[in-house]
Amino acid sequence: MASSENQENVKGYSKSAWSWGKGYFEKIVNVVICVAKDAKKLGEEDPRRIVHSFKVGLAITLVSLFYYFDFLYEGFGVAAMWAVMTVVVVFEFSVGATLGKGVNRGIATLLGGALGVAAHRLASLAGENAESIMLGLSVFCISTLATFLRFFPKLKARYDYGLLIFILTFSLISVSGYRDDEVIEMAHKRLSTVMIGGAATALICIFICPIWAGEDLHNLTATNIEKLAIFLEGFGQEYFETRDDKHKVNKASLDGYISVLNVKGTEVNSAKWEPRHGRFRYRHPWGQYLKVGRSIRECAYRIDALNCYLNSEMQTPLEIRTKVKEPCTKMSSECSCALRELAKGLKTMTRAMSADPHIKKAKTAAKNLKSSLQTSLWPDTDLLDIIPAATVASLIVEIVSCTVKIADSVHELACLSKFKNPDAAIANEKGQGKVAVASDIQESHSVNVIVE
Amino acid sequence: MASSENQENVKGYSKSAWSWGKGYFEKIVNVVICVAKDAKKLGEEDPRRIVHSFKVGLAITLVSLFYYFDFLYEGFGVAAMWAVMTVVVVFEFSVGATLGKGVNRGIATLLGGALGVAAHRLASLAGENAESIMLGLSVFCISTLATFLRFFPKLKARYDYGLLIFILTFSLISVSGYRDDEVIEMAHKRLSTVMIGGAATALICIFICPIWAGEDLHNLTATNIEKLAIFLEGFGQEYFETRDDKHKVNKASLDGYISVLNVKGTEVNSAKWEPRHGRFRYRHPWGQYLKVGRSIRECAYRIDALNCYLNSEMQTPLEIRTKVKEPCTKMSSECSCALRELAKGLKTMTRAMSADPHIKKAKTAAKNLKSSLQTSLWPDTDLLDIIPAATVASLIVEIVSCTVKIADSVHELACLSKFKNPDAAIANEKGQGKVAVASDIQESHSVNVIVE
Repeated sequence: MASSENQENVKGYSKSAWSWGKGYFEKIVNVVICVAKDAKKLGEEDPRRIVHSFKVGLAITLVSLFYYFDFLYEGFGVAAMWAVMTVVVVFEFSVGATLGKGVNRGIATLLGGALGVAAHRLASLAGENAESIMLGLSVFCISTLATFLRFFPKLKARYDYGLLIFILTFSLISVSGYRDDEVIEMAHKRLSTVMIGGAATALICIFICPIWAGEDLHNLTATNIEKLAIFLEGFGQEYFETRDDKHKVNKASLDGYISVLNVKGTEVNSAKWEPRHGRFRYRHPWGQYLKVGRSIRECAYRIDALNCYLNSEMQTPLEIRTKVKEPCTKMSSECSCALRELAKGLKTMTRAMSADPHIKKAKTAAKNLKSSLQTSLWPDTDLLDIIPAATVASLIVEIVSCTVKIADSVHELACLSKFKNPDAAIANEKGQGKVAVASDIQESHSVNVIVE
Repeated sequence: MASSENQENVKGYSKSAWSWGKGYFEKIVNVVICVAKDAKKLGEEDPRRIVHSFKVGLAITLVSLFYYFDFLYEGFGVAAMWAVMTVVVVFEFSVGATLGKGVNRGIATLLGGALGVAAHRLASLAGENAESIMLGLSVFCISTLATFLRFFPKLKARYDYGLLIFILTFSLISVSGYRDDEVIEMAHKRLSTVMIGGAATALICIFICPIWAGEDLHNLTATNIEKLAIFLEGFGQEYFETRDDKHKVNKASLDGYISVLNVKGTEVNSAKWEPRHGRFRYRHPWGQYLKVGRSIRECAYRIDALNCYLNSEMQTPLEIRTKVKEPCTKMSSECSCALRELAKGLKTMTRAMSADPHIKKAKTAAKNLKSSLQTSLWPDTDLLDIIPAATVASLIVEIVSCTVKIADSVHELACLSKFKNPDAAIANEKGQGKVAVASDIQESHSVNVIVE
């Protein structure tokens, strides 16, 4: 009886253990599947991520060859570790960020090492007892000072990592010097291994499928302008048409502007470190992208305010909306066209002259709006009903002036970076038989001359 | 003759060298003065920066004692370097960021070291020739994989540094193991020196004038709400009064909201690493600050749109503005009061019940605005003149609903983090004889009951 009960118990235990184990196993399988899906999505979003990972693996493996070949190892010994370390720490996603970190690390190692050797020499003059005190004091003072320097905004933006490595190298060299008399050799080994690691990183980063921060920044700017254009294109339809399911489908593409609200120009710092590449000259005016970005963001704020009226409770009756419909849709679509031209101009690196006539038309529409509001078209409508539509109209007028700002800053960028004139582009395209497009552009160009 | 010419030349040279040297010297002095001024400003803005610098200096000096005392040095030898390194790299401005980096580094060193030792053991089983190939392959695979993992947004937010150190430690241990047979001892030394460095950093960071990221985040949230309140308080005056110099002086304080537009919630990640401190429990709902921050930013976008109308060319005549003046200034000032109460509540960590009656009044004012627009107060005014004022009015209505959102998210935060009830605070204050304030709060509290 007892034994059969025991058997039952054992069966029960093993059963519950089995189901527990099974549940656990299923959970793990689920997590693995989720991770795999995420990884696939990340890779598909930007395949350069996979390439970057392989590049890092390659660089580390190459540099660790120091340990495998005797003739390489003999020169540096354990110091070869610094080369591996440099690769791991310095290799960033874009060329600019990598070069920035590499140059920072190289120069900081040089300066920190030199100062460390100097501190060691000075301290050793003071005799056995005073030496440790002097070394300690110098480490304290230098690291306090350098840490404070990291708070300076200008230094923080470009040399933060360099200051960190400076503190590190200075402390290591001056302090190890207390034990190891060959302090110069140590500093020299550290510097040369850091240089080797940095050079390997830079070469692999630049010559194997390089990822340029500058190009990313340039494309991102164009894409952001395009996102604003997409919203403005869709807004007219969405706000002034009667709502049906066909339009609701487009709603997702209208929300593209939201990502523009939070764009920060951090790539500019990386881009400044990059050498001449692709379509970008050595001294490309990267600073101007900050200005363009600012005007894009300003426009996005207005669009965000406008977007509220798509879903607002305070809704204007359709018959009132139709009265401002024509100038508003005109302004919105012309701004959208102008922004699209600007984005296209950026992408092809030509001067977007063809944007100007659209801006002119948008301005004319703004004037028309004013006159359509001035005439007594509104005899017996309730003011309260008008207000939301009036607000929308005046926000669109604001957006027109934001578009002008964007156009100005993009034109300035085109001027500074010596973009091609569309004439030259047309000549090229004509040669390839694309006459229709060319005449279109030339026509708008002639309007542009009148505008200016 | 020739000699006198020579003399003249020499005189001329020495003169120009003198003036050149003088100009150069003056430039250097100017730079030094500028830097000193900047440093003074940085220190005055936030004196904790100076304290932080001294703390870093102290920590590095303390840890470098390993090199000075024989009985400490004997245990670790050159590996003592890792302790210094850890301090330099891990010591961040706030406790949370420091702990986050320290924990990341500690755990990553442990895992990377263990895996490195395992890889070394496995490879050494394969025999002399295959060993280097297997080690190289494992380094390549692991570092490629770990680099790719760094792209996962969730891992990037909290464990980016850990993954970096994991790659670093794994490469160093497994590769150095090829040369050095005491690979376990090496891994052990590295781990323990990293732990010592990390512990020293954590202790100094926490116990000497700690800088809590959580507290900073909490105060920043309150300050940002206050900045919005300051704008709304000033806006009514600025927009509806005739402009005179007295008001122009306040303009600078109105621009305070601009800094709110670009606030990011990066401190939240640091705050999550922090232990219980000051007024914050162990599991303080830091995530909720992101939500509060989002609603604050949304309100700031509206305020930015509103701010345009202070300087806009499209200006409504004063007599029209005065018609919407009363409800608009009422809404704006009530929102301002509500935001101030919310900020005060956050600062004192009490439930800001007293904000609710202000919000109720603002809502009532919004209704009044509607009725004042509905009544036929506007018989023969030009619609074009009305529009800017109408837009301002409707933006202020939007801001009222943004204020409601901010209030909701702050109330939710108060609920989640179990803020004191104002009753308790009142009882305390009454005990100290501050009856006048108390009755004021109680009155508003009773209104609040009606609202809910």
